[in-house]
Amino acid sequence: MNTVEAAWEILKTAPLGKLPLEEVFLEDALSRILGEDIFAPEDQPAWDTAAMDGFAVRTEDIEKTPICLKVSQVVFAGEYPEEGIGPGECAKIMTGAPLPKGADAVVPVEDTSGFGKEEVEIYRKPEPGSCVRKKGENIQKGELLLEKGERLTPKEIALLASFGISRVLVVSPPKIAVIATGDEVVPFERTPRLGQIRNSNTPMLKACLERLGTLPISLGVASDREGDLLEKVKQGLSYDGVVVTGGASVGERDCVEKVFKKLGVSILLHKVRIKPGKPVIFGVWEGKPVFGLPGNPVSAFVSFSLFVRPVILRLLGGHTHFEWHTLKLEMGVSPPKRESFLPAKADYLKRTVQLLPWKGSGDLVTLSQANCLARLPEREVAPLELIQVLPI
Amino acid sequence: MNTVEAAWEILKTAPLGKLPLEEVFLEDALSRILGEDIFAPEDQPAWDTAAMDGFAVRTEDIEKTPICLKVSQVVFAGEYPEEGIGPGECAKIMTGAPLPKGADAVVPVEDTSGFGKEEVEIYRKPEPGSCVRKKGENIQKGELLLEKGERLTPKEIALLASFGISRVLVVSPPKIAVIATGDEVVPFERTPRLGQIRNSNTPMLKACLERLGTLPISLGVASDREGDLLEKVKQGLSYDGVVVTGGASVGERDCVEKVFKKLGVSILLHKVRIKPGKPVIFGVWEGKPVFGLPGNPVSAFVSFSLFVRPVILRLLGGHTHFEWHTLKLEMGVSPPKRESFLPAKADYLKRTVQLLPWKGSGDLVTLSQANCLARLPEREVAPLELIQVLPI
Repeated sequence: MNTVEAAWEILKTAPLGKLPLEEVFLEDALSRILGEDIFAPEDQPAWDTAAMDGFAVRTEDIEKTPICLKVSQVVFAGEYPEEGIGPGECAKIMTGAPLPKGADAVVPVEDTSGFGKEEVEIYRKPEPGSCVRKKGENIQKGELLLEKGERLTPKEIALLASFGISRVLVVSPPKIAVIATGDEVVPFERTPRLGQIRNSNTPMLKACLERLGTLPISLGVASDREGDLLEKVKQGLSYDGVVVTGGASVGERDCVEKVFKKLGVSILLHKVRIKPGKPVIFGVWEGKPVFGLPGNPVSAFVSFSLFVRPVILRLLGGHTHFEWHTLKLEMGVSPPKRESFLPAKADYLKRTVQLLPWKGSGDLVTLSQANCLARLPEREVAPLELIQVLPI
Repeated sequence: MNTVEAAWEILKTAPLGKLPLEEVFLEDALSRILGEDIFAPEDQPAWDTAAMDGFAVRTEDIEKTPICLKVSQVVFAGEYPEEGIGPGECAKIMTGAPLPKGADAVVPVEDTSGFGKEEVEIYRKPEPGSCVRKKGENIQKGELLLEKGERLTPKEIALLASFGISRVLVVSPPKIAVIATGDEVVPFERTPRLGQIRNSNTPMLKACLERLGTLPISLGVASDREGDLLEKVKQGLSYDGVVVTGGASVGERDCVEKVFKKLGVSILLHKVRIKPGKPVIFGVWEGKPVFGLPGNPVSAFVSFSLFVRPVILRLLGGHTHFEWHTLKLEMGVSPPKRESFLPAKADYLKRTVQLLPWKGSGDLVTLSQANCLARLPEREVAPLELIQVLPI
């Protein structure tokens, strides 16, 4: 059986297709994945500007301080000074305003006799370039601004806007089919008969997929009859990916893998040596990722976090690395049967993590109280030993 | 001038109004803030069920092993066993299936002679209750399931679905007006004349507000004329909150605070002793939060993260605590002028953070490369000393 590390290698190299790109307005691009490299269309700042409110001066004029200079002009932000400043002159200038020709530094108003007169006394000699934002100091025209695959957050939206870029090519959201299986599973809105259970996996997986920026499509619940599941998976393969949940354990009626194989899915992974979430299936069909997840909701959640998420991110062309954190485990644990990923509560400020007393892979109550999965190796962990956790 | 800690106290106690609630379908509730406490409508699990595929037995029958039991019935998940099991009998049972009356433990198939016969040999004596999920063990009817103010992520969606809860009361998204000011500021799609700058703050703040679950409304750019800004802020006050950016520095044309006061906003905060983002204004008007942020984009971003975000979360009724992390600063720094919150790159696995060489509060390029704000106290920090960081 594959270790989780081996499984991740398989996911990283599986042959996935490419999604089409689409052009969107920048203001509609939040959380989308950039589909192209973007290069700076101009220098930023576009000219030398004042970094403080004060006086633009020629440093060569200021041999010793205090010194009195003539205020020959006033430059507000938004204005462009046509005239330069000559020897013995300075310009009153506001933060963000372009420096007049001749000026090579700004003296902050605090280091002067202040605004409001035709002359000003300078109390401190500035270095050339001081309190000046130099043309091109943030980035120069033609340099790489943002890389393909980047997810656009508010700061990237701001960056693109600051260059006047109002449309961007982003990855079209893939449609991912979600199928639940199991004769005992009923739609969650319906009252289950004795023995039946509600399908909480479909709404959970749809929410997980939605958060990644895909369009989840529920194909409902397949019965345990092979033909029923086959029909649904076949329909699912017309979308950009398929996630089946349930029917991947050792129970007699399990047939997810059989159905995948019948439909020509090439299976790359079956079972991973972890707990919970061992019976995960991953395959590819015409470049589309196809998953079989366990039916227990916590197992399905863990499998999604560890296996589906990185593959969907790869499909989207985005960064696929996990954001692992290293924290101290508050209480030691005896060696688990298999490497485990358990619901836990991390305190990132105190740098500690605490396992939650979960009651098995059906316990969504404990999962809802967790803020991370704690990764426990297949050996004893001493109290306060460092372990890895994955925020959820 | 207020310290950042004093400022946070003010934000925590400012008198904010209440937003209306609305009922939504569970599948449309992702990322929404719960507007009501929800209690478990039933026990979960609703009955004793098998935690493994195997045989449901009466432990009293198994004095020593191996022992041979008669397989009197088969229970699949989704079925409900009408008949109990008698002495010397057992039931073949699948994971998730309800235990027949009389049975008090499940022996996993691995500890038996296996499925498929009318009799089975049990190799290992189970404890009563072993491999059984007890009725109500996750949560009992009437216990608190989810608290008001919780943000619904996929795991909470799954939890609610597992109880058949298909509609939830959530907080209606507030409309927040965004206003940029400054004669030098032009809409970002427009080509600026020399000296003008593009308005990157409005798209950035809209994206920040959208991510929190509010509906941002841009009211465009106000000129530095007081009347123009006053008109826009007045219009903004008809929404649920207002964020103005720019014009809050010491420059001559600044009049944001004056305008707020003229309109009856009670100012609770003006300036915070931090860098960047010192000239922040916070006030309240009829329970609506009103902000004046600095005009420099990085300053505006930092101010939003530190001050606007927690207030908007409070308005939404959600949890407002910051998720601080503690990491080692890779290189020491000399004491900054004021407590600083600087763009930095955290490595949460290695537990280190590195400051990025940013070029002042206009440098969106460096900000886009950051994944956190590093909090630097007003004193020297030695290499590898622990500091706090805020993920962004």
